[in-house]
Amino acid sequence: MTEREFARLTTEVADRAYLTTVGADGYPRTRAMLNLRNPSLYPSLSGLFAAHRDDLLVYFGTNTASHKVGEIAACARGCAYYCHPTRWHGVSLIGDLEVTRDRELRILLWQDAWTAYYPAGVEDPDYSVVVLRPHAVSGWNGREAFRYDLTG
Amino acid sequence: MTEREFARLTTEVADRAYLTTVGADGYPRTRAMLNLRNPSLYPSLSGLFAAHRDDLLVYFGTNTASHKVGEIAACARGCAYYCHPTRWHGVSLIGDLEVTRDRELRILLWQDAWTAYYPAGVEDPDYSVVVLRPHAVSGWNGREAFRYDLTG
Repeated sequence: MTEREFARLTTEVADRAYLTTVGADGYPRTRAMLNLRNPSLYPSLSGLFAAHRDDLLVYFGTNTASHKVGEIAACARGCAYYCHPTRWHGVSLIGDLEVTRDRELRILLWQDAWTAYYPAGVEDPDYSVVVLRPHAVSGWNGREAFRYDLTG
Repeated sequence: MTEREFARLTTEVADRAYLTTVGADGYPRTRAMLNLRNPSLYPSLSGLFAAHRDDLLVYFGTNTASHKVGEIAACARGCAYYCHPTRWHGVSLIGDLEVTRDRELRILLWQDAWTAYYPAGVEDPDYSVVVLRPHAVSGWNGREAFRYDLTG
């Protein structure tokens, strides 16, 4: 398996994603997020992410009022970490974060169960989307560390 | 339960810890680590960490030659994230990282199974310890986000 195939599969097998932002104080902060790239958990999104199998683009739903939204506005640098639920296989996708309220994107990602987070549904003003555009991958395949650039 | 009690218990129930460093490029990188604060997984260390129940000090074993060691030398800012294995309960411990080869500390933390990582045992030159001294906690208790300072 190539490193690229390993990285993509790891984002798909992970039960959660761990999103890290950098605060105004320069310190990183991490939190668990729904892993929308997992096709067993989010089958309706598998086609969307199949189109991003090479660039490893990531989307997350988020509360517009959350701390992370303010942090991303102040510093775009971030990463999303994915690891196998039981093995020591993991990848960090490293890149710039953006928060958007793009309506098509909100509709594209929407899951019915999300009314628990956004009571007003897909048009809830507290429903935003975080986009991560990775430019590099840093990982551990169980034997050794690897890194590669995604750009170009 | 107070936020402090919640934070301590979350570090103890988590199956893994997610350690984030900041690279020379200013981007964060995360990787899964053994959660030595989990007393079910590491009963021999439970007394050690009981003494750090309030300051939430963290230790990790690491390969001296690992990327993270170089990153910590260049930038001390980091965080360790812990979350409940099945619930959406998590805390980030935010603070400065240090890598040490202090012999007493290496012996104190040593686990027999670690010869898989450090074939020469506790004196293996590739066995180092990462220390995280948190100054703040950022978490999610399943209902709301919370933050507090640990200093003072």
